[in-house]
Amino acid sequence: MNRETLLRIDMSRLEARREPVPAAYQFLGGRALTATLIQREIPPRCHPLSTENKLVFAPGLLGGTAATTSGRTSFGAKSPLTRGTKEANVGGRLGHKLARLGFTAVIVEGAPHTNTPYVLHIDKDGARFADATALRGTGNYELHALLVASGKSQCAVTIGPAGEHRLAGASIAVTDPEGRPTRHAARGGLGAVMAAKGLKAIVVDDAGIERLPLSVEKDDFRARATAFAKTVLEDPRTANMSAYGTAGVIRFVNRDAVQSMPTRNHRLGTFAGADQLSGQRIAALASARGSKMLPCMAGCVIKCAILFNDARGQQLTTALEFETLALLGSNLEIDDLDAVAQMDRLCDDIGLDTIETGNAFGVAMEAGVLPWGDWKGVVALLEEIRAGSHIGRILGNGTETVARVFGIARVPTVKGQGLPAWEPRTLRGMGVTYASSPQGADHTAGLVTARNVSDETLLKQSRHEQLVMAAVDSVGLCQFSNPTPEDMASLLTAHLGRQWTAQDVLELGRQTIQAELEFNRAAGMGQADDRLPAFLHTEPLNLPDGPRVFDMPYDAIDHLWES
Amino acid sequence: MNRETLLRIDMSRLEARREPVPAAYQFLGGRALTATLIQREIPPRCHPLSTENKLVFAPGLLGGTAATTSGRTSFGAKSPLTRGTKEANVGGRLGHKLARLGFTAVIVEGAPHTNTPYVLHIDKDGARFADATALRGTGNYELHALLVASGKSQCAVTIGPAGEHRLAGASIAVTDPEGRPTRHAARGGLGAVMAAKGLKAIVVDDAGIERLPLSVEKDDFRARATAFAKTVLEDPRTANMSAYGTAGVIRFVNRDAVQSMPTRNHRLGTFAGADQLSGQRIAALASARGSKMLPCMAGCVIKCAILFNDARGQQLTTALEFETLALLGSNLEIDDLDAVAQMDRLCDDIGLDTIETGNAFGVAMEAGVLPWGDWKGVVALLEEIRAGSHIGRILGNGTETVARVFGIARVPTVKGQGLPAWEPRTLRGMGVTYASSPQGADHTAGLVTARNVSDETLLKQSRHEQLVMAAVDSVGLCQFSNPTPEDMASLLTAHLGRQWTAQDVLELGRQTIQAELEFNRAAGMGQADDRLPAFLHTEPLNLPDGPRVFDMPYDAIDHLWES
Repeated sequence: MNRETLLRIDMSRLEARREPVPAAYQFLGGRALTATLIQREIPPRCHPLSTENKLVFAPGLLGGTAATTSGRTSFGAKSPLTRGTKEANVGGRLGHKLARLGFTAVIVEGAPHTNTPYVLHIDKDGARFADATALRGTGNYELHALLVASGKSQCAVTIGPAGEHRLAGASIAVTDPEGRPTRHAARGGLGAVMAAKGLKAIVVDDAGIERLPLSVEKDDFRARATAFAKTVLEDPRTANMSAYGTAGVIRFVNRDAVQSMPTRNHRLGTFAGADQLSGQRIAALASARGSKMLPCMAGCVIKCAILFNDARGQQLTTALEFETLALLGSNLEIDDLDAVAQMDRLCDDIGLDTIETGNAFGVAMEAGVLPWGDWKGVVALLEEIRAGSHIGRILGNGTETVARVFGIARVPTVKGQGLPAWEPRTLRGMGVTYASSPQGADHTAGLVTARNVSDETLLKQSRHEQLVMAAVDSVGLCQFSNPTPEDMASLLTAHLGRQWTAQDVLELGRQTIQAELEFNRAAGMGQADDRLPAFLHTEPLNLPDGPRVFDMPYDAIDHLWES
Repeated sequence: MNRETLLRIDMSRLEARREPVPAAYQFLGGRALTATLIQREIPPRCHPLSTENKLVFAPGLLGGTAATTSGRTSFGAKSPLTRGTKEANVGGRLGHKLARLGFTAVIVEGAPHTNTPYVLHIDKDGARFADATALRGTGNYELHALLVASGKSQCAVTIGPAGEHRLAGASIAVTDPEGRPTRHAARGGLGAVMAAKGLKAIVVDDAGIERLPLSVEKDDFRARATAFAKTVLEDPRTANMSAYGTAGVIRFVNRDAVQSMPTRNHRLGTFAGADQLSGQRIAALASARGSKMLPCMAGCVIKCAILFNDARGQQLTTALEFETLALLGSNLEIDDLDAVAQMDRLCDDIGLDTIETGNAFGVAMEAGVLPWGDWKGVVALLEEIRAGSHIGRILGNGTETVARVFGIARVPTVKGQGLPAWEPRTLRGMGVTYASSPQGADHTAGLVTARNVSDETLLKQSRHEQLVMAAVDSVGLCQFSNPTPEDMASLLTAHLGRQWTAQDVLELGRQTIQAELEFNRAAGMGQADDRLPAFLHTEPLNLPDGPRVFDMPYDAIDHLWES
């Protein structure tokens, strides 16, 4: 596989140029590469929507190979939401195509001197720009239908109206295998950065490129990839994922002992209507409606994406995830599955992070903007976000903006980013991850669900999981394939022609997090940013064995990255 | 003078109690005392609108004496705007009354368990609470007319609708000598903190207290106060102030060589319509309209407050200041004096900081929310702030919220607080003050207008002026009386029965700033917060001798407080 080219897009001049990959980046991919590019190229104190910020994206080190789940792509920039470094990765068609085209990363910099939006086309012949004025305001569903019309060689990378409005909750949508905009680099407002770069869409087309990447032709790699796929399929976690998607976890997290189903703006951890939203419920409806489980990228053996049809059998949304069902469902006291699915579709179409948006609505309900449980109100207000009305802009800018505008002191964020569903008062390791991750409140930064173990163990687990996840995101695998450092080392060795050990893989993770921490520090973040919302310390969840707040001392968390 | 009592108001229990002043606070007043109380009593990481924040206020060390301009009061809290320490001081009737009642400071803490607003009455018999539900939404003009109806012994301290909406641009209004709400502790959103404490108003009544404070009966103090008043009257700056108020500076700052009349969201420093807004123009209209110059507090010999009548001779606004004329006038390309006066009245009535609000509108015009120069649009939107509509809440929350909501990267703030008129690109010393003051962008923190001197000199001047101003604000004098450390030492010695030197006065300033810096650090602020907006570094003003940006290296500024 050719890993020798950076594609640099200068939006000020509407020029693209290919650059050789510097030696220092030769063994960096995905999040490792975006984190490094951010740290080396973006002025840390710049405004995230200024011309100085850059939008970078990169397939993982295994991108373009036949290793299962290896097609994820990392997007990065200085985040309009956290004001720090940001990585959000995504499945869909993109990663393998970028890798096949030979691009180690794409760096979008500058901004047009007018406010004309552009479509950037990237294919084997190079990059070209087209005026996208006619596409202004177009939702992602319509946009992807237009942009990938000529077939599976194409993948669109787009922003919806939320991105065009430069909202800090705006996502970047990537075409899924079925041609729909259901895969999102959702967190941190990267859609607003894409808008600030003057881009409405990027179309990546790998037509004319040899379909089989080199590495799968090597027997050694093929054998290792097959072994890894077998490991994934035999992992007991995979069966649950394949059957129920991430929504399969709801019955577990809603139990009294876990209380990790955020309810009423994270006031409670169990929700009476949780069963209505569960993966089992979704599966039970599937045959009657023709819903099904899909892979989010070619070659994935897990297939955890729920394609959810409405009562008439029409696709309503795809990738109906636990986080969405929790933040837009239980957290708003909404137990109507079809309603949440409709909200999810709207978020995909408008281009919004469902976690941030769910938290924003939770605070809005706390402020009395609309009643708890009012899903019709949520749907109407999502359309306000699309329209860019004042209330729409407030909500679309995320949790902290809603809290500021309505004078609410109870704000479920870390580093400005809304809390995922995983609950730090019961799953204390998640508190460690949320507080110490350079990404802010992000469950994918390092999921630690152990209970009834010592603080010391949780700290070690969080640190280890964060290193592993930084590596997974850099290798470009899906977290749900649960690769061990050894798995990754084996595949990388066969693919890149250099010996990798598990230790090398963890070191890749460590370097990645180090680059992120350094950028955040230079951007002005400090220890005070590594704190959970106050209410997690003061408002207990009532567990069977008594009330529980997050009371782990911060001293140890503050030193997590020093070793 | 009795300086032995702290009045502590517990809004959770609706209780007031008197406490002896701790020995450590014995020689602290005004800003020195509020800064110290904030640093010692408020959890630095608390949310500014949470029950943990406190609203504190204190007359200066000379409060209650006959020294001219000695009646200023410092308000303080953790700021909803800057998220750091905040002091905003104000003239009007309050300071002398608090001092006469024997209160060194009032500390308001906790919050009611319901959302009932209260009026707190303070007089010689103690403190009591009254339900203020009937006053909800009442503007400051009507409120002060109601609350100080029974005469000059009363002073109201109130929030308008902006405070009730908990907006970060909300001020606290204090009754002026004529009974109107035209004196504001304006900066930093302290009105929102007062609302979060459950207070709509405080009425301070000194009826029954000996009118002449003890100190003026002492020959020594009287002689020194008389000498100080003579010095003030003989200062050439005073005559200009007495004739034109702060608006007298407009012709100076609008010159090509100074360019400190912010225009079009701080893009330019001169404004074609500046003469229309000048103190000379206001003075020229005065006799025909019956406008006049007033003192803002009893005993002030300067009388710089412009009472501005409309064309029919009715009071339109009082205290029409340079900053208001610049930020709500030139900065929005509005040259209609009556229009700006009307906006000023609305800001006083709604309870808004005119500097923050002017900056917020500048960014809103940049975003296309309304056209440049559209004063009718501004007036209509000020009424939206009063009403608490969505756009009203966006604007009333200040500059950064407007920028965030509308995706604008050109944000004229330091530490989240909108820039005053004084221009760092020409008056480089102001850049030093804005960057290094723990208060954020605040011209009253240390005005340095020297040009064509070395950076070293400017750094020294800014540091010295900041120390002097911290002392002035602690002594409770008005900055426009231009007291030297020696003047203050002389008056304090006679009043407090302890020998003060000029050095002691500067040390009071140093300790004050030290307490502020320590709180900010504990709240999570760092070097990255001590930076000016990027456009001041990249967009030059065109001076007669060439383009000029703010290009002073930050290294020296960063070390300003280390010596």
